[in-house]
Amino acid sequence: MPGEFDFIQWLRSQQKASESVRVPAGDDLAVLKWPDDDLLLVGVDQVLDGVHFDSSIHTPRQIGAKVMNRNLSDCAAMACLPAAAVVSAAMPKGASLDYAKELYLGMRGAGDLFDCAIVGGDTGSWAGKLALSVTILGRSAGVEPIRRSGARPNQRIFVTGPLGGSIRGRHMTFTPRVREARALAATGAISAMIDLSDGLSRDLGHICRESGVGAILYEHQIPVHDDAIEMRRDGHSPLEHALHDGEDYELLFTTSEVIAAELPGICIGTTTAEAGVRVRTKNGDVPLEAKGWEHLL
Amino acid sequence: MPGEFDFIQWLRSQQKASESVRVPAGDDLAVLKWPDDDLLLVGVDQVLDGVHFDSSIHTPRQIGAKVMNRNLSDCAAMACLPAAAVVSAAMPKGASLDYAKELYLGMRGAGDLFDCAIVGGDTGSWAGKLALSVTILGRSAGVEPIRRSGARPNQRIFVTGPLGGSIRGRHMTFTPRVREARALAATGAISAMIDLSDGLSRDLGHICRESGVGAILYEHQIPVHDDAIEMRRDGHSPLEHALHDGEDYELLFTTSEVIAAELPGICIGTTTAEAGVRVRTKNGDVPLEAKGWEHLL
Repeated sequence: MPGEFDFIQWLRSQQKASESVRVPAGDDLAVLKWPDDDLLLVGVDQVLDGVHFDSSIHTPRQIGAKVMNRNLSDCAAMACLPAAAVVSAAMPKGASLDYAKELYLGMRGAGDLFDCAIVGGDTGSWAGKLALSVTILGRSAGVEPIRRSGARPNQRIFVTGPLGGSIRGRHMTFTPRVREARALAATGAISAMIDLSDGLSRDLGHICRESGVGAILYEHQIPVHDDAIEMRRDGHSPLEHALHDGEDYELLFTTSEVIAAELPGICIGTTTAEAGVRVRTKNGDVPLEAKGWEHLL
Repeated sequence: MPGEFDFIQWLRSQQKASESVRVPAGDDLAVLKWPDDDLLLVGVDQVLDGVHFDSSIHTPRQIGAKVMNRNLSDCAAMACLPAAAVVSAAMPKGASLDYAKELYLGMRGAGDLFDCAIVGGDTGSWAGKLALSVTILGRSAGVEPIRRSGARPNQRIFVTGPLGGSIRGRHMTFTPRVREARALAATGAISAMIDLSDGLSRDLGHICRESGVGAILYEHQIPVHDDAIEMRRDGHSPLEHALHDGEDYELLFTTSEVIAAELPGICIGTTTAEAGVRVRTKNGDVPLEAKGWEHLL
């Protein structure tokens, strides 16, 4: 990338002062003071051109926002507060400085909404397409992390919003459910949680397998997004889209308690002692295969 | 990648128990308990096919080792102890499960030498070539991080080993100088430090710019690696290779003190109040341009 040094200087000028950041990006590593009482949560998620976005359609600001939001959504899944992020970018040869800045501004804009600072990065230029990877650090900040493995039989299963058809655009524009996750987890009543990135059938399968339970979903309680209804022309029903499309980025969680009216949660089923996931239809129970449609951008 | 689920299960079986890791890879995020007294250092470094390695020549185990070692070398540069790492891998479509396992084993083998656990990751498959990114977390563990910005005029400049010609193979096989860095920093006498990834001329420029100093290098004290001598056939002198080739991964540091004999350090020059880097030759001082040869794999 031409002007790589200028880019690094520009990046440094963009950084905000922060109490917890002792040394910001610009040295070999950033230096943070981690709060004594907080657990440190860490994970990484990438977006690849032609898989998670299409650089011929999506703007760099949208692409940057998406990779950050995917990581913020992982924080939501564990009910932690996003704290800091580092980025690696493999840039196509010939990409402009302005394009790189737009990617950064997309990431930073998404992070800023949750006080998540970008504290480091690595930019490389190659003959390949754009690959962007963000590592996120989250802190427990007074709320015990919610795992996938805590579900018990006979608990109710909830989602935080309507599902399906995100490929029509929502997969680039979703809002990570960090605040909802914190409010839910603060009740102390959430036994297991995950964000819906792979699709309901697959992600519910993750919770069931990790928790050693099964599940029944009630067909008529699954909230189907308008986008899923629009997609029925492809030969799959709206319900199939709601069950199997990925990238909804709503939360899926289990609890034994009643969820307060001011908290988000649509009850879609119940966990069972018996393994396997089934859908309860008017014609009886049907086994649910875990599958996600291939992303076709 | 075929068998992605099998791969994830295999990865989980590879993880070792660790006191500081509350929740290992396999959930949305890993959960760590950070030591109360330790600063948290974080950074990211990637390797790209055709830039940092050549997948038609190098084995996946070598490639995995390199990306981890580049990050461990960043820990050395700041004199922190590597603690944990997360990985993102963009895999070419058609790459085998065995290839992915070998990449992982390369990373893990390198990390194990410094007790650095891999606690999370994201694997994607795309039409592009292999891109591997590692984010590393380091802890200060009783030693104040050494920055690039601490050099003062009239300090001596040291390197930990001979330079130049790493492209002949050392760029894939180097040992990160973590132990040397800790021993040096524990003396309390190191004012600035960096690892030599971009090449001596460029990395010394980083220290000088961040510290607001200049430097004089003594031509005949710069340790020239045998590989640099072998490379003189390309029209550049061994000294030019030692000054400008990158990827030596030795440490470059400054100090006012005498370095104890048991510590590594070859004195190559001195810092100056006057800005700019010069090389002192038998014919007088020559300004040193910061440049690194393009990597040509």
